[in-house]
Amino acid sequence: MSKDRLLSSFENQYRPRINQFLNQNLKTDVDEKILFDSMHYSLMAGGKRLRPMLTLATLLTFQKSISEDELKASCALELLHTYSLIHDDLPAMDNDDLRRNEPTNHRKYGAGMATLAGDGLLTLAFQWLSDNHLSKSVKTNLVLALSKASGPSGMVSGQSRDIRFENHRLPLSQLQILHRHKTGALIHYAVKAGLIMGHVSDDMNPLLLKFADSYGLAFQIYDDILDVVGTEEQLGKPVHQDQNKNTYPNLIGLDQSYDKLKQVINNGKQSLKQCKMKYQVDTSLLNAFFSYFNVE
Amino acid sequence: MSKDRLLSSFENQYRPRINQFLNQNLKTDVDEKILFDSMHYSLMAGGKRLRPMLTLATLLTFQKSISEDELKASCALELLHTYSLIHDDLPAMDNDDLRRNEPTNHRKYGAGMATLAGDGLLTLAFQWLSDNHLSKSVKTNLVLALSKASGPSGMVSGQSRDIRFENHRLPLSQLQILHRHKTGALIHYAVKAGLIMGHVSDDMNPLLLKFADSYGLAFQIYDDILDVVGTEEQLGKPVHQDQNKNTYPNLIGLDQSYDKLKQVINNGKQSLKQCKMKYQVDTSLLNAFFSYFNVE
Repeated sequence: MSKDRLLSSFENQYRPRINQFLNQNLKTDVDEKILFDSMHYSLMAGGKRLRPMLTLATLLTFQKSISEDELKASCALELLHTYSLIHDDLPAMDNDDLRRNEPTNHRKYGAGMATLAGDGLLTLAFQWLSDNHLSKSVKTNLVLALSKASGPSGMVSGQSRDIRFENHRLPLSQLQILHRHKTGALIHYAVKAGLIMGHVSDDMNPLLLKFADSYGLAFQIYDDILDVVGTEEQLGKPVHQDQNKNTYPNLIGLDQSYDKLKQVINNGKQSLKQCKMKYQVDTSLLNAFFSYFNVE
Repeated sequence: MSKDRLLSSFENQYRPRINQFLNQNLKTDVDEKILFDSMHYSLMAGGKRLRPMLTLATLLTFQKSISEDELKASCALELLHTYSLIHDDLPAMDNDDLRRNEPTNHRKYGAGMATLAGDGLLTLAFQWLSDNHLSKSVKTNLVLALSKASGPSGMVSGQSRDIRFENHRLPLSQLQILHRHKTGALIHYAVKAGLIMGHVSDDMNPLLLKFADSYGLAFQIYDDILDVVGTEEQLGKPVHQDQNKNTYPNLIGLDQSYDKLKQVINNGKQSLKQCKMKYQVDTSLLNAFFSYFNVE
């Protein structure tokens, strides 16, 4: 089976399960109609579900079965990711009108309700991590890892840097720190959640988390590149929005950004290869996630 | 010792511990200077710390000692409460300029940073509930209880109702539901957190949570009354802001609001009395919390 077919088969099996779970279970935990509509609107707007998919792929890599409980805890990350998009789009932040070819949450529900929808999704993420039948130890570790990854020394710190450095050209090393916080932290957590739920032995963790960090950085560089070379139709939002922002193409040009992307992808693949050789783990599903980047 | 002296002595001992803990520990978990400044500004703006104080008072009611771990978990609620104030004040929500006689967070740091400060405090609350030495069972129960109390079927749902019903006159029964979500849920949690950490036996919980619910309702009615009879100097913010809002004085007039307040306080005191008689628990410290309401 080629890498792409492996990924497709995984996607065909698990993305519908994630979508169905989100769609069916949000209702239970929101008791206000407009608030529910606003949360549901952004949650079901057709994302790739990359982050929970990475968690599930990590579980499958270690031959762990995926029950409703692992699914719920994995979907918590999608709630949290969706909150970050809604708040990021707000007039007081990026002031974006379109996401995935549809009006952003605040364009449809107003900035007040969009703020609340984000707050609700963020809080519900922690509810879903604790309101399931996983062991208490697993739940506690997940809550701790997600709060650190997404909070004021993780993602929120990255967003704060983003605001602070707008219109200031950063050195590349600083940009890498910004990206590590802003998008890397949640992708790191996505893999870590799989390692926690899969009870994967500690000695294997560093290589898999190195893969996660390479993947997160590649994801952000690719996103930066797409803003330059993609079309509005492909991306579902206006392109060329990053001209005053600190992005890889703005700092080192498009060609070097591609080179950097390839190099980072290669680092990630190396980490998986080492994991495979050292511990006899079949890492081909995780490796297949690199095929999202059209650079090969 | 009179009720007031009991409360004063408790306040003198524990409020400084809460303030010191918040002030010393926020820094550790925020790695961005402006984000930290913005979070710290609102967190240390001189609140009464009512919610963590209620948690600690519940622990003391059951003769539980208060270590750094119980203190940290109690302070998590103050982080969460502060986030709710910051987001509530935002231009897209209540658009308030003053809180506790000082500019609101967004007036000082801008609405983008205020949004992030709120997001950071909310997320950090869950980190503090899980990053301590309490048992895994206690941590899991705290996270579950706080996420339910503060999320889209708790406080956030109340805020959503508040937006939805602005300029619509509610029946009193609906107003009570709104208040139960908007302010009652966190006060309910404050007592519940003490019961969880104190390992208080399940049969005592209903009476103490009935006390909490009466206290939460009394708190909101009193707040509504103060907007009518208080001065800007006393309250630290403009008064008479609630004229188009669903408040007790607007719905039933000032005199009846006082009557209702006294009745709700009496209900709360009855719950404590029953607890004392049935289980021989000294509830005088919790009872003393009613002296915050100047109606006796």
